[in-house]
Amino acid sequence: MQIGLVGLGKMGFNLALNLHRNGFEVIANDVNPDFVTQIAQQGISTASSLGDLTTQLTGRRVIWLMVPAGEIVDDVIEQLIPLLNPSDIIIDGGNSFYKDSLRRYAHLKDKGIDFLDCGTSGGTSGALQGACTMIGGDTDVFKYVEEVFQKISIQNGYLHTGRAGSGHFTKMVHNGIEYGMMQAIAEGFEVFERSQFDIDFQKTAELFNHGSVVRGWLMELTANAFAKDPQLDAIKGVMHSSGEGKWTLETALDMGVPTPVIALSVMMRYRSQMEDTFSGKVVAALRNEFGGHAVEKK
Amino acid sequence: MQIGLVGLGKMGFNLALNLHRNGFEVIANDVNPDFVTQIAQQGISTASSLGDLTTQLTGRRVIWLMVPAGEIVDDVIEQLIPLLNPSDIIIDGGNSFYKDSLRRYAHLKDKGIDFLDCGTSGGTSGALQGACTMIGGDTDVFKYVEEVFQKISIQNGYLHTGRAGSGHFTKMVHNGIEYGMMQAIAEGFEVFERSQFDIDFQKTAELFNHGSVVRGWLMELTANAFAKDPQLDAIKGVMHSSGEGKWTLETALDMGVPTPVIALSVMMRYRSQMEDTFSGKVVAALRNEFGGHAVEKK
Amino acid sequence: MQIGLVGLGKMGFNLALNLHRNGFEVIANDVNPDFVTQIAQQGISTASSLGDLTTQLTGRRVIWLMVPAGEIVDDVIEQLIPLLNPSDIIIDGGNSFYKDSLRRYAHLKDKGIDFLDCGTSGGTSGALQGACTMIGGDTDVFKYVEEVFQKISIQNGYLHTGRAGSGHFTKMVHNGIEYGMMQAIAEGFEVFERSQFDIDFQKTAELFNHGSVVRGWLMELTANAFAKDPQLDAIKGVMHSSGEGKWTLETALDMGVPTPVIALSVMMRYRSQMEDTFSGKVVAALRNEFGGHAVEKK
Amino acid sequence: MQIGLVGLGKMGFNLALNLHRNGFEVIANDVNPDFVTQIAQQGISTASSLGDLTTQLTGRRVIWLMVPAGEIVDDVIEQLIPLLNPSDIIIDGGNSFYKDSLRRYAHLKDKGIDFLDCGTSGGTSGALQGACTMIGGDTDVFKYVEEVFQKISIQNGYLHTGRAGSGHFTKMVHNGIEYGMMQAIAEGFEVFERSQFDIDFQKTAELFNHGSVVRGWLMELTANAFAKDPQLDAIKGVMHSSGEGKWTLETALDMGVPTPVIALSVMMRYRSQMEDTFSGKVVAALRNEFGGHAVEKK
Repeated sequence: MQIGLVGLGKMGFNLALNLHRNGFEVIANDVNPDFVTQIAQQGISTASSLGDLTTQLTGRRVIWLMVPAGEIVDDVIEQLIPLLNPSDIIIDGGNSFYKDSLRRYAHLKDKGIDFLDCGTSGGTSGALQGACTMIGGDTDVFKYVEEVFQKISIQNGYLHTGRAGSGHFTKMVHNGIEYGMMQAIAEGFEVFERSQFDIDFQKTAELFNHGSVVRGWLMELTANAFAKDPQLDAIKGVMHSSGEGKWTLETALDMGVPTPVIALSVMMRYRSQMEDTFSGKVVAALRNEFGGHAVEKK
Repeated sequence: MQIGLVGLGKMGFNLALNLHRNGFEVIANDVNPDFVTQIAQQGISTASSLGDLTTQLTGRRVIWLMVPAGEIVDDVIEQLIPLLNPSDIIIDGGNSFYKDSLRRYAHLKDKGIDFLDCGTSGGTSGALQGACTMIGGDTDVFKYVEEVFQKISIQNGYLHTGRAGSGHFTKMVHNGIEYGMMQAIAEGFEVFERSQFDIDFQKTAELFNHGSVVRGWLMELTANAFAKDPQLDAIKGVMHSSGEGKWTLETALDMGVPTPVIALSVMMRYRSQMEDTFSGKVVAALRNEFGGHAVEKK
Repeated sequence: MQIGLVGLGKMGFNLALNLHRNGFEVIANDVNPDFVTQIAQQGISTASSLGDLTTQLTGRRVIWLMVPAGEIVDDVIEQLIPLLNPSDIIIDGGNSFYKDSLRRYAHLKDKGIDFLDCGTSGGTSGALQGACTMIGGDTDVFKYVEEVFQKISIQNGYLHTGRAGSGHFTKMVHNGIEYGMMQAIAEGFEVFERSQFDIDFQKTAELFNHGSVVRGWLMELTANAFAKDPQLDAIKGVMHSSGEGKWTLETALDMGVPTPVIALSVMMRYRSQMEDTFSGKVVAALRNEFGGHAVEKK
Repeated sequence: MQIGLVGLGKMGFNLALNLHRNGFEVIANDVNPDFVTQIAQQGISTASSLGDLTTQLTGRRVIWLMVPAGEIVDDVIEQLIPLLNPSDIIIDGGNSFYKDSLRRYAHLKDKGIDFLDCGTSGGTSGALQGACTMIGGDTDVFKYVEEVFQKISIQNGYLHTGRAGSGHFTKMVHNGIEYGMMQAIAEGFEVFERSQFDIDFQKTAELFNHGSVVRGWLMELTANAFAKDPQLDAIKGVMHSSGEGKWTLETALDMGVPTPVIALSVMMRYRSQMEDTFSGKVVAALRNEFGGHAVEKK
């Protein structure tokens, strides 16, 4: 089967190799010509433009988007629409917000074009060696390309989660859980770090991966990180985020579901990006006002 | 009535003036002779030592402690015990932990000495002009010195809260509420500060004090703080704490009561005292491990 | 000055009386004819429809909307547009989301109609006796009706907060602060309620209003509530909400500002509306899986 | 090597089988004679009392305690002291608070008796088939019994974490992390459950275990739980706890470390045990006071 792949970033590049290794005929494209050159060096066919890409694909075309979530997805889709035929299939494999996927599904349906939203987990190594994919969309469309998901995922690592939107919804919640788990691990190791004991972080993370309740891939990565930098001395504790945690929280708010752990995981990331806080100034000023407690001057 | 006052810090000094203005015969002492000199300049009698203090008091002695919470209270009490007679009264007006007050009450009871635990709110201005006092201890002892609490407090500003310990317990919870209220105000003004609008913080805080639901003394102090420094440019957002918020939280945990707002108020204070966090390093490292997301280097 | 008032609910009815008492000529309307009859009995002119309302107003018309936030505001505005002349003024005095106000301002500007967004605080008693109002919109429009805000508000209780949207934005944040303050008070009293001491809730709340740091209107209302029902035995702890807390939180998330106290205040409200939680079932099931801990059966 | 095992509950019983399978000569005891009978039926030697137990052990005795944390541990230790010789070894394999372990270590040191604190993770299945053990105490004592830890743990599943107390400290923090992870998973599935999509919980949890970032033992147990009861219809969402989460939080507070995720995980457990809350009543009453919002009557 031919697969048109748009987007050759960290995830897309590895996915191209994964598809190729699994016998799919990949035609890859990216706005950055360097990435196109690099993937060509891996023996993968390339396209110089979306027009070129769609021309090289025959029959019912399958185009996998692996571009940054947001307007870029819409831009690519708008460029593709005039180039596609009815029943051609666009798969959005990025971290799109599920409400955008619902909108895109309906928009493409109007044009007769099929759409699947595919959440892809497992990080860059998963994209290369075997991902975990969760796919939303019409059953018949899913069935048509099921082989793709089956091959690029690890064994039992793909699922048709339901109707359109459910793939990215499932991935969003997955990431919300991930935020909470990461913050839980991080808090635990901060308690270790501040403790009166001389805890060996790497050995402890390793231990936790052998028979403990908290064993899992995140704890393995924790052990790996400490193996490289035992005290994490080289890095700053600034935690960025790409949106899914916030979306999970917003979705929960819309449903009236309390998700305190996911909320605080997101907020501690925001806090880590601030050198100082206005809220802190207000509290410090108030303590000075009523109690004469000294404030720290800048 | 004579009152022996031990401790002439910000609160004690003002309380001495308050007692004196209200017609009590104050004999004041502090380990710092400068403070003793300063209060003497205000026309208040002083004692050079606890022995001197107890000698100057006649009849059933009333000694008000206004010293930092913790071991110092125990030290002063141990020094006072051999100097006192049965039914003499020690009032601890500081921010002692209520479990310490329960212990001290029992310990002094064994010696025949009476003890009242008095939570004092209203800040330094309240200590001077009229405080809010919450008193725990035996009813007959409270009655004996009720006039003191009545005079130094603003109208309707004192309460016998119940048996020993309840005064400091009530003050502890008061401060827990205060932590939450302050953090709520602070978060609101941080949202103002980050907003697309050009909110005048001082005018808004002033407005909130005229008819709004959130009007109150803390909002008045907020307006005062902004009147002095409209953007709080001069100060750092480092929030210190003196223990009552943490104690409220620990007490709630022991009771199995969820107090998320008080908990987070305490924790955001701790966070503000940290330049960087180990937890942030762990999360940043994990994001790098699974997704190749760049970490910020030191 | 004439004021057309649309909406005679708890807030609107009281505002009509307030405007009337302050010498404005009110022409009142509501979709519910009973409310119209009731306000007529208070000596206030009424209109049977929006058409009737606009007909009765002369010169540059001023129409105050006091209807539930959301689609109803848009519906009323759409009905009013064909009935109004350029430079007529619509004031939205309800709890609208500020982004809706920004949109409505622009939409009405296109039609030549002026718009002010007015956050109104102080509850129903404030609406009657003197509110706290925060007004966003063009300065010249504000000036034209400033007398209205000045008269219906308590002294110093109104503020032109800035450009369109800022009035409702300020009110939204005000309510976010209010959520946090209320939850802080509530947590404190739950600690009192569970404690080993026999705290008199009403006396304690009263005390806190006399000289303490946490004194303010919310604590006065707390004392009032306990005066009516000393243990709050008659009511259930179900906390509803009308949106502003959630909006404040969502706005903070969009800005990347951590607001843990406001977040948890909102979430504990949601939690209170749930009899049981699916999250609780999941944790209980997990504890059973790994540790054999008994689950509670339904 | 002989091992005296005191405590034959869920964990202790399985540990006895594990030790026996691995070639240790177990002499088992429990205050409940039924448990003693049951373990005897498994071919394991038993003791009718602690005196009988110590008599049956020869040479440098090794006694493993697997009894509930708290006073029972102290009681057993006090009973054992007169029965033991210098350099005999007590291992506390339960979930004791690390400060208690520090105290017990010092107390036993005074008597010449050696003590190891051993955190045991992996649940009841781990206790049977291969646990994860984290051991604090003197290095030479650890070395003497290292073979025991090595044999009863899965490969690479034991660690000498450092000096006395560090084993239970590590286990405490492990459980704090576990609380946060479980709550994160639970929140995610509550979002699934409330969503507009028809998510298959069991299939989704299964999927998450195949290549996703959140794969791990807790997610496997989640899949198992849904396999048994697809909607968890049979159980109530009441989450009990055995202390380690609370201890982790208290320890973090003492260190001034913010651990919001662990804190909220603990608090949502407490909340789940309450049918109604006093804090909810207070907020509901306040909303009624200022806004006339209806309260729900009991």
